[in-house]
Amino acid sequence: MSIFFEIKSSCGKARRGVISTAHGQINTPAFMPVGTAATVKAMLPESVIATGAEIILGNTYHLMLRPGEDVIANLGGLHKFMNWNKPILTDSGGFQVMSLSSLRKITPDGVEFNSHLDGQKYFLTPEKSIDIQHKLNSNITMIFDECTPYPIDHLYAEKSMRLSLIWAKESKKAFHDRDGYGIFGIIQGSTFEDLRKISAEALQEIGFDGYAIGGLAVGEGHEKMLEVLHFTIPNITSDKPRYLMGVGKPIDIIASVKRGVDMFDCVLPTRSGRNGQAFVSGGVINIRNQKYILDGSPLDELCNCYTCNNFSKAYLNHLIKSNEILGAVLMTWHNIAYYQNLMKQLRTLIEKGTLYSYTDEELTYVK
Amino acid sequence: MSIFFEIKSSCGKARRGVISTAHGQINTPAFMPVGTAATVKAMLPESVIATGAEIILGNTYHLMLRPGEDVIANLGGLHKFMNWNKPILTDSGGFQVMSLSSLRKITPDGVEFNSHLDGQKYFLTPEKSIDIQHKLNSNITMIFDECTPYPIDHLYAEKSMRLSLIWAKESKKAFHDRDGYGIFGIIQGSTFEDLRKISAEALQEIGFDGYAIGGLAVGEGHEKMLEVLHFTIPNITSDKPRYLMGVGKPIDIIASVKRGVDMFDCVLPTRSGRNGQAFVSGGVINIRNQKYILDGSPLDELCNCYTCNNFSKAYLNHLIKSNEILGAVLMTWHNIAYYQNLMKQLRTLIEKGTLYSYTDEELTYVK
Repeated sequence: MSIFFEIKSSCGKARRGVISTAHGQINTPAFMPVGTAATVKAMLPESVIATGAEIILGNTYHLMLRPGEDVIANLGGLHKFMNWNKPILTDSGGFQVMSLSSLRKITPDGVEFNSHLDGQKYFLTPEKSIDIQHKLNSNITMIFDECTPYPIDHLYAEKSMRLSLIWAKESKKAFHDRDGYGIFGIIQGSTFEDLRKISAEALQEIGFDGYAIGGLAVGEGHEKMLEVLHFTIPNITSDKPRYLMGVGKPIDIIASVKRGVDMFDCVLPTRSGRNGQAFVSGGVINIRNQKYILDGSPLDELCNCYTCNNFSKAYLNHLIKSNEILGAVLMTWHNIAYYQNLMKQLRTLIEKGTLYSYTDEELTYVK
Repeated sequence: MSIFFEIKSSCGKARRGVISTAHGQINTPAFMPVGTAATVKAMLPESVIATGAEIILGNTYHLMLRPGEDVIANLGGLHKFMNWNKPILTDSGGFQVMSLSSLRKITPDGVEFNSHLDGQKYFLTPEKSIDIQHKLNSNITMIFDECTPYPIDHLYAEKSMRLSLIWAKESKKAFHDRDGYGIFGIIQGSTFEDLRKISAEALQEIGFDGYAIGGLAVGEGHEKMLEVLHFTIPNITSDKPRYLMGVGKPIDIIASVKRGVDMFDCVLPTRSGRNGQAFVSGGVINIRNQKYILDGSPLDELCNCYTCNNFSKAYLNHLIKSNEILGAVLMTWHNIAYYQNLMKQLRTLIEKGTLYSYTDEELTYVK
């Protein structure tokens, strides 16, 4: 039963693993492109695969509102609905309930909220969230939790973390155990070392197929995030995947892999691509800049993606300035490919045992 | 020199031909997807090719404003700029100057207008339009003309048509004759038989590589359009391609092919695709309709396009309602494929000599 995680090799704290699911394998460290509303925005499924991505993330909150989990279940599940036959991880909806909906009311049983689409009232509980993820046929289900904002005081952080632990138990109980499907716990506790330790240990007592670190990438910054990883990761068993939710910039990912994180997701490559930002070796460029108007070179000379193989900065500058859909498509494609190439490079260096021979900055140069 | 047109077979007035250009062959009757701003909206070049399209149309007006013809020339021409290696036809800018720009002033020399993007003043003349199309490296250049609205009186129609004839001569004179490149004349004269005849004969006296019928698809309706074709086409030599500009719906194309037209262009499949309309056998469907929310079948059971092979109406309903870019991509892909499959079917029936065995309505069922 469940999913299977094997560590092939390690280098310092960094691990090179493989997660096996009912829909195939995921090589870790892995970056999961975000497919909020049953589509990685602007991308064909086969284009996502062409970037090297082996798993995507779907959003329970968005999908329960539209088209609704019963519609997707009726049509054979999320994989079939969106024509993506590789693994899917779904979040629990907790984060979006906090960030997108209005008139939230948190009770011990769950969260009452109004849809950001039409104001309709919903009540999301751990059991309901897990049931929705089951109907979506998600390979990796996330427990329903409260994601706290930053900064918060110790009192609120502890109260919230303890509520999330109760919900974690209820989530685990509601999960339908099946071969090739798993459920991850989410460690909370904001930036407090004692709370993170309590959360991690209690979750492992319940027992999950992987452990996520939640409540980061909410404005605390790079150094604070690394500090939390530093005192949280030693409390997590080494034989399960570790997933840092909502992270992040390439430099965040590189630093986190060096500290033992295996999985990541973030809207950054897709969202910023649509806005004209490209991740390239050594940093970020804004393709709208007038200096690219006659630039016949690709976004990144080191990149082998479809966009870089076929189109110039000048053309992308024109498309994005003209608000053309193809601009969003090609920029997104490159950014996801950059992230996937980065993960591949990190995996290779872990295998070779040379990951720590390079600075984080040097590792942003991706071939 | 020039482009080469060969009629392989005919069936009644309908012709099955091949146009040879510097960038390859075009099988006629042909439909040209519109690639206004150096992109067929929402489509990768290779996706356009996958639909069977062999030529696209670029808009001189849009490209001269942004990014500018000199930028494109500097980067190696429009084919290279947009990574489309098959033939390109460009319009002359005349139609868009009339429909999009503000503060137009027509003089015997050309048209002064203000850009719809930033209000900047431009003066477009026949020589300038041809020069821009040359810089774009267009395989088929269109003469600069005045496209009259509908309805207009005989006096204005004649005055405009005679000005367009003067501009036709100037356009021909400005054209750079090269092997694999050609220039088409545009017959004007609104809905008046005598004017269409004068225009057609005068243009053929100047001598062009093909003859377009302009000033239609401007609100005159299906029957009036066919009436104009009926009395205009007999005045056009049979050994050059005939191009009906801006047309149209599948039923318009079918009826026009039966009357001897070889080439078409229209924004309908791309624009209406983005808006959620799909062309299918027997008519049009609006994918936003609630009845498709649980419909697991493809847009058109007879269609073999990428969209119909991989996605359901239910998924497209969800994407279009969610305003997802992928919805625009997949709907556009299907619509262009529908049009290309229609043209292929018409070509096959001309070859078989059975085109007139089917009603226009029956021919909208495309396998």
